[in-house]
Amino acid sequence: MKKTVIEEIVNVKLKDPVLIEGLPGLGMVGRIATRYLTKQLNAKPFARLYSPHFPYYVLVNQKGSVRLLHCLFSFWKNKTGKHDLIFLTGDSQAQTIEGQYDVADTILDFAEKHGVKTIITIGGYRKEAEKKPKVVAVSTDLELLNKALKADAIASPSGNPIVGTAGLLLGLAKFRKTSALCLLGETRGYLPDPKAAKGVLTVLQNILKIEIDLSDIDKEIERAKKVIERMKKIAKERETHALKTRKIEEGKVTYIS
Amino acid sequence: MKKTVIEEIVNVKLKDPVLIEGLPGLGMVGRIATRYLTKQLNAKPFARLYSPHFPYYVLVNQKGSVRLLHCLFSFWKNKTGKHDLIFLTGDSQAQTIEGQYDVADTILDFAEKHGVKTIITIGGYRKEAEKKPKVVAVSTDLELLNKALKADAIASPSGNPIVGTAGLLLGLAKFRKTSALCLLGETRGYLPDPKAAKGVLTVLQNILKIEIDLSDIDKEIERAKKVIERMKKIAKERETHALKTRKIEEGKVTYIS
Amino acid sequence: MKKTVIEEIVNVKLKDPVLIEGLPGLGMVGRIATRYLTKQLNAKPFARLYSPHFPYYVLVNQKGSVRLLHCLFSFWKNKTGKHDLIFLTGDSQAQTIEGQYDVADTILDFAEKHGVKTIITIGGYRKEAEKKPKVVAVSTDLELLNKALKADAIASPSGNPIVGTAGLLLGLAKFRKTSALCLLGETRGYLPDPKAAKGVLTVLQNILKIEIDLSDIDKEIERAKKVIERMKKIAKERETHALKTRKIEEGKVTYIS
Amino acid sequence: MKKTVIEEIVNVKLKDPVLIEGLPGLGMVGRIATRYLTKQLNAKPFARLYSPHFPYYVLVNQKGSVRLLHCLFSFWKNKTGKHDLIFLTGDSQAQTIEGQYDVADTILDFAEKHGVKTIITIGGYRKEAEKKPKVVAVSTDLELLNKALKADAIASPSGNPIVGTAGLLLGLAKFRKTSALCLLGETRGYLPDPKAAKGVLTVLQNILKIEIDLSDIDKEIERAKKVIERMKKIAKERETHALKTRKIEEGKVTYIS
Repeated sequence: MKKTVIEEIVNVKLKDPVLIEGLPGLGMVGRIATRYLTKQLNAKPFARLYSPHFPYYVLVNQKGSVRLLHCLFSFWKNKTGKHDLIFLTGDSQAQTIEGQYDVADTILDFAEKHGVKTIITIGGYRKEAEKKPKVVAVSTDLELLNKALKADAIASPSGNPIVGTAGLLLGLAKFRKTSALCLLGETRGYLPDPKAAKGVLTVLQNILKIEIDLSDIDKEIERAKKVIERMKKIAKERETHALKTRKIEEGKVTYIS
Repeated sequence: MKKTVIEEIVNVKLKDPVLIEGLPGLGMVGRIATRYLTKQLNAKPFARLYSPHFPYYVLVNQKGSVRLLHCLFSFWKNKTGKHDLIFLTGDSQAQTIEGQYDVADTILDFAEKHGVKTIITIGGYRKEAEKKPKVVAVSTDLELLNKALKADAIASPSGNPIVGTAGLLLGLAKFRKTSALCLLGETRGYLPDPKAAKGVLTVLQNILKIEIDLSDIDKEIERAKKVIERMKKIAKERETHALKTRKIEEGKVTYIS
Repeated sequence: MKKTVIEEIVNVKLKDPVLIEGLPGLGMVGRIATRYLTKQLNAKPFARLYSPHFPYYVLVNQKGSVRLLHCLFSFWKNKTGKHDLIFLTGDSQAQTIEGQYDVADTILDFAEKHGVKTIITIGGYRKEAEKKPKVVAVSTDLELLNKALKADAIASPSGNPIVGTAGLLLGLAKFRKTSALCLLGETRGYLPDPKAAKGVLTVLQNILKIEIDLSDIDKEIERAKKVIERMKKIAKERETHALKTRKIEEGKVTYIS
Repeated sequence: MKKTVIEEIVNVKLKDPVLIEGLPGLGMVGRIATRYLTKQLNAKPFARLYSPHFPYYVLVNQKGSVRLLHCLFSFWKNKTGKHDLIFLTGDSQAQTIEGQYDVADTILDFAEKHGVKTIITIGGYRKEAEKKPKVVAVSTDLELLNKALKADAIASPSGNPIVGTAGLLLGLAKFRKTSALCLLGETRGYLPDPKAAKGVLTVLQNILKIEIDLSDIDKEIERAKKVIERMKKIAKERETHALKTRKIEEGKVTYIS
């Protein structure tokens, strides 16, 4: 494999489709949200993107076979609304500077080919946790931005960087006749953050005018909460233990002197 | 985006133009000086350089949209003198070795296309601060060098390296019919240094025989000075605080023993 | 050398050949096993793969000359069975991400050209030492996987990564009419591990239905065992010495106080 | 500059030339020896090699201009012997893996074009200092190797790596009708080592049957010796000073307690 390629596995014709992208990144917000949509809407895979800029390992799958790291395009036929949806998520982002630009460009070529005129990218926005994480929106298109702001997203301060595919797709879309919106869920970013993803999903269903059942992501949020509580407990036990050890050692010192 | 490209946004015809380059680098001297000139002369943007060798993020702008990192060419019509001016500044330099050579070459191609026969590059020269920072000049053209020396620049010791675009443009210009001069403002280089930039501007207006109002950069210098004073004050307070803490601890030690 | 090339040194016609690959990697399992087979079966070299992605040094050989780092293809004519064998081992894997994909692809092109329909790759699987290291198998082909499992290999947990050429050959083989099996010998991976390699060889001779004399690898295992014992002894002596030194120092401290 | 290029500055016709290469590397042995020969024989520059794989800075020269990093080919017409000589030295080696292979290949193309059938590369061989550093020889050609061994070089142990251009030129020469010899001067490698270079020069003049005045390199050796002595003296003074400081501090401690 000498260059980034997209292999189409099913031939589909889509109605004025919107592309929604969420690759691994800060707090895994983009990937969690996009995978959740793919599952809930029962979207069907139709193309895979492979690249020599992805890490050079394969992953064992459940059948005892392997697969190259890749990104997966799935589609969803929207029976009631105007826009079919394409979802893009995957194993990894490109690992080199030039690879990042190359992969983003290849995605845009593919989108253009399928008649995509609107792209929504999803990512995380580093911020110390609040009760309810907000969703930050930026867009190449004022109308699209306003839709997001009406759907309770907030505007980004000027000067902020948006790193990786979620940002480059917007930057490169401006050279094409494609509008693009980026939704970033506020997250501390250390661990996979379904709560931040839920925030993005809430904004998203509003913009797309589709209804998504969010009860399953609430379960994910519960699980993530328990993981954090368990980690905090372990950390506390360690601290207590360390304190005891220190006291014992100080005791010793006293004894020795 | 698979390679470095220049997108021309306005069609301009320039009179024997001189290109002045100042990208981010040591003490931001080049960028500060070039942006200052662009503003003061009210130069107009006419082309943008994009490259897959720039960092792979985008920046949010004031309209809530984003832009790819890029370099910007602006022009200024010189009504009284012989040479129109082209200014080149931008967000970043190329991030890889091969990228640096590639971007510099693309700039020279563009300059040649627009009839540029003289290039002036601006950068910083690492030196511990003196009252009035000097400007170091090197050139591929003896006449050009002498102009700079007459304008109070000093010659560079032989063997010095000039890193990045400011240097490569000179090195690569020698393969073309282009003369190039590099002006380096002495700077400690830790912080954006408008004082070093002012030094370069003074030499530059002398060489270019144009008049530039330098009162605004004096304000920038004042601001930078205050920033430094504030930082020094904070550093001092920290020191005092640390000293107190130490004394208290030493006190304790005495007490314990 | 601007790209990966394969130089054929002998023209051979092979009968439905199986390619067995083992390059340097974890515990050197793949390389030890493949080299052992090459030697035992007296396989003959017939092609070399060179690449600008290999490290940029040469190795002095026994005649006082040098050789570029490369991978070596050897063949073995199977007089009694259905499949001739091709062995691939070498000095190094590619050093960059893109290089890894490039080299794996070049290997597959070459295999295809020689009519290879089955590839077996060998590597190490990191696991703390047990009495008898197991062999982990994954395959792009269920039948092939079952053969390995019958030959006492165990299935890999899903989600495991297989890094480097041993993995990429499987991942990329899926785009071609080539079946591929990967056999990973469990190893701690710190030192060359002939014991892990022997495990793989045992499975391999069963799958390939060829007999290989394993007495020589038992000698290698003995040698490796002695090396480890020697290293443990040295480590213990160091520890004892450190303990004594500490006691002496503690003595000093007592004395000083 | 998008790829490695050689710019010929003078048109020369050479008589069965031998190419002698010495780029910066371990102990600067190759560069010191090759530059010495170039000077002593008053060889004339005739071509420059530029590459986007060299570091991305330029060097200020004595005329106040700059030059790109490059390698320089010089020639020497041999009035009495059979072979003219080409010398290749320069500022830098390529900075990336692929760049190293690319630059070495470009050198060989150029050598072939000028009818070079023998190449001699020079480098350093890491070894703790002895009274008289030896010269280690390896060659793609047994006859050439024997010449070096007769001239008091010693053979290299098998398995040794030779890193960089000095090694790759030999490895890649084997694909062409070019013989190549590598001479490595033993050096500790920390500092420029004219003594190691002298060793190589002694062997070289014997092989090439030319006489080179070595009195100037003896002066360089003297200078290098003085530098080392000065450094040792400084190190000793520091040690003495540190010892005093420690004693004072220990004194304090006693006082405080």
